[in-house]
Amino acid sequence: MSEYRGYEGDSLEFLKTNQISVGDSVTIIADINYSGMIMPRYEHSDDKHIVLKLKSGYNVGLEIEKIEKIEKNQTTEKIIEKDEKIEKIEGLPKILLLSTGGTIASKIDYRTGAVTPVLTADELNSSVPELAKIANIDAEVLFSEYSENIMPEHWLKIAEKINEYSKSEYAGIIVAHGTDTMHYTSSFLSFALAGFPIPIVLVGSQRSSDRASSDAAVNLIGATKFITKSNTKGVYIVMHQDENDDTVACHIGTRVRKNHTSKRGAFQTIGDLPAFIITGNEIQKNTKNFFKINEYQPRIYLNTKIALVKYHPGYDPRLLDQIIEAGYNGIIFEGTGLGHVGKTMYETVKKAYKKGIFLGMTSQCIDGRVRMTVYESGRDLLDLGIIPLENMIPETALVKAMWITGNSQDRDEIKKIMLENIASELTN
Amino acid sequence: MSEYRGYEGDSLEFLKTNQISVGDSVTIIADINYSGMIMPRYEHSDDKHIVLKLKSGYNVGLEIEKIEKIEKNQTTEKIIEKDEKIEKIEGLPKILLLSTGGTIASKIDYRTGAVTPVLTADELNSSVPELAKIANIDAEVLFSEYSENIMPEHWLKIAEKINEYSKSEYAGIIVAHGTDTMHYTSSFLSFALAGFPIPIVLVGSQRSSDRASSDAAVNLIGATKFITKSNTKGVYIVMHQDENDDTVACHIGTRVRKNHTSKRGAFQTIGDLPAFIITGNEIQKNTKNFFKINEYQPRIYLNTKIALVKYHPGYDPRLLDQIIEAGYNGIIFEGTGLGHVGKTMYETVKKAYKKGIFLGMTSQCIDGRVRMTVYESGRDLLDLGIIPLENMIPETALVKAMWITGNSQDRDEIKKIMLENIASELTN
Repeated sequence: MSEYRGYEGDSLEFLKTNQISVGDSVTIIADINYSGMIMPRYEHSDDKHIVLKLKSGYNVGLEIEKIEKIEKNQTTEKIIEKDEKIEKIEGLPKILLLSTGGTIASKIDYRTGAVTPVLTADELNSSVPELAKIANIDAEVLFSEYSENIMPEHWLKIAEKINEYSKSEYAGIIVAHGTDTMHYTSSFLSFALAGFPIPIVLVGSQRSSDRASSDAAVNLIGATKFITKSNTKGVYIVMHQDENDDTVACHIGTRVRKNHTSKRGAFQTIGDLPAFIITGNEIQKNTKNFFKINEYQPRIYLNTKIALVKYHPGYDPRLLDQIIEAGYNGIIFEGTGLGHVGKTMYETVKKAYKKGIFLGMTSQCIDGRVRMTVYESGRDLLDLGIIPLENMIPETALVKAMWITGNSQDRDEIKKIMLENIASELTN
Repeated sequence: MSEYRGYEGDSLEFLKTNQISVGDSVTIIADINYSGMIMPRYEHSDDKHIVLKLKSGYNVGLEIEKIEKIEKNQTTEKIIEKDEKIEKIEGLPKILLLSTGGTIASKIDYRTGAVTPVLTADELNSSVPELAKIANIDAEVLFSEYSENIMPEHWLKIAEKINEYSKSEYAGIIVAHGTDTMHYTSSFLSFALAGFPIPIVLVGSQRSSDRASSDAAVNLIGATKFITKSNTKGVYIVMHQDENDDTVACHIGTRVRKNHTSKRGAFQTIGDLPAFIITGNEIQKNTKNFFKINEYQPRIYLNTKIALVKYHPGYDPRLLDQIIEAGYNGIIFEGTGLGHVGKTMYETVKKAYKKGIFLGMTSQCIDGRVRMTVYESGRDLLDLGIIPLENMIPETALVKAMWITGNSQDRDEIKKIMLENIASELTN
């Protein structure tokens, strides 16, 4: 346990000089006066601020340069946060929250400074009290990983866990997830759990809850409202629509990308409006049926021997050769423009085809449709056996090929299913 | 030579039935009446339309279903297009147009149906007559390749050719280029020709000139206006701003991507407004100095042993191993979010570092800045020797690393120059 968890440099010095440590109740005189508790920091940010939890529950970051005075309040001991037992309200819809880690699923214990996953429904409810008024939430921790460390094996675990609840009383399932690879996970769940009877909503946050600009609560409330009000099926990602705290967007899980490293509105539906937009209690719907087949048909399988190859000038076809030699079952190209790779690739592509490898074409433009009949080079590639994957985004195509080849290695079968619009991954 | 060049299926049948071939002068009765010449098609499009060149010079596509009647005009022979010798107007600025191929640089000879590069200034001027009123254009064909076949060797040729004109009387240089990899080429020229005394403008077209919606003329006119009016330096891409024919955007050559497969407004400046917006004769400027150093200092060198690695869940570090074994000098990661790869990659990254390979981090989010001090995983990767490349877009980072390592293999030197803002590749 550290008394100064997360502080460094100037802000650490500032706390030490004033004999203040994390968890202390303080009064601060600055541009206005603040009273609250010193919070630990668990994102590594600058060393110019300290973070204070106000009585309202909100956190503010205060610039140490602007603090005239900081005083420890005359309490005999540090405030111990109680896990208030929040009463469930009869008749509210039930929601299951599965936590997999990431910024959103973490909670700082400001007595110890430790970052812990939100463990119980009570802890969750006490951290975002608005939730208890909308739904009765049961929470369960699946694992605790930042999403850059989420592997395809984790996708399987999440899918298997959700599959257990296909006949439950829940109105929907929320998956708290790190944002980095959330759209890969949502793609996998869309295919593996096609037709699932209740909505599955992945939710994350771009700013951790020790920052005043945290989007965790708004996104979680948005996801909860969406489940209780939308009366729909499908796998979605719910996040801020833009920098505004008023509007939350609900994206189709197979048509969404993280398109900005840090903005709260980082997630975007490619080439379309989000499926739903939630403003206050209003839900605006812009979408049709999510699944091709309405019936629930779990197909939880996976094969990771699929490569994603982004072509660029100077790409050495010998790198493709190595993928072929390593026994891959499929290659998804991120070609240029309408779906091209240079002539220098043709011989190796031919070799890959002969080996029985599935070859699919997407575009590094990300938005728009591949059309390989327009130019000679596209026609050449069609002749070599590359399958144009319409307007499927590259990440979704990768995940879909991983999913299909978990069950079948037959190239015609793979091709057929790749081009079937199973979970809204293709649009007109 | 084909009488029906580019026609197939229904439209071919239609022409044959009516004994009409490419180059014939015809009268068509449909919703309105048209008179003009049957054009060949060189994009492979649908088989439901024929293309007619009207006397105004514009092409229209006509749906064969809606044609009531088509009649060959009573001319004794096919109209032979003359290469009109357009007089140069004294006192207009001089521009050099280098043609490298791609849709924009092509011209259909509708007598033979052959697609030929625009060869002479006269041919160019007669195809876009507006140009001759703005500038006196000298044209030169460098080569004729669709841009998916443009290789780093071609970049060198373009740079060397432009370098010959560093002390010329030209007001600027236009490079006609296929759109697929135009932004890779513009990045290379930005670095190799830093400080070049006159503007270099790459221009392409998304729709070929046998289509009514062709953007070739508007983009070429926009580039010409930009050069004669902007009074600036730098390497830019000039293309439609959106679907509108009125507005042309001029993008910084190191901050631009093709973000849509087919739209005319496919090119976008990442995270910012275009540097210039040209509406009619108005030019709106949104940018500062393009180059860090104002003096022209050609550094035309290149090394293609740089790999671009897009990380995703399930990425097998053994693929990275093979890049290391193949003797690459640099690896640019397209990491997730703020610049991450999974823990499964750490051992191989360590090995790459030990081999002296330059390791740079960009984000597959494309927009936004990598920040590797925020989360533990970022810090881990910094410790392993990966260099965060700020908000440089992945394609530009790849090209820049290819450029630097063409001259130096010293990792500290590479790092220093990668983080120097040489040609507006980094923004605040």
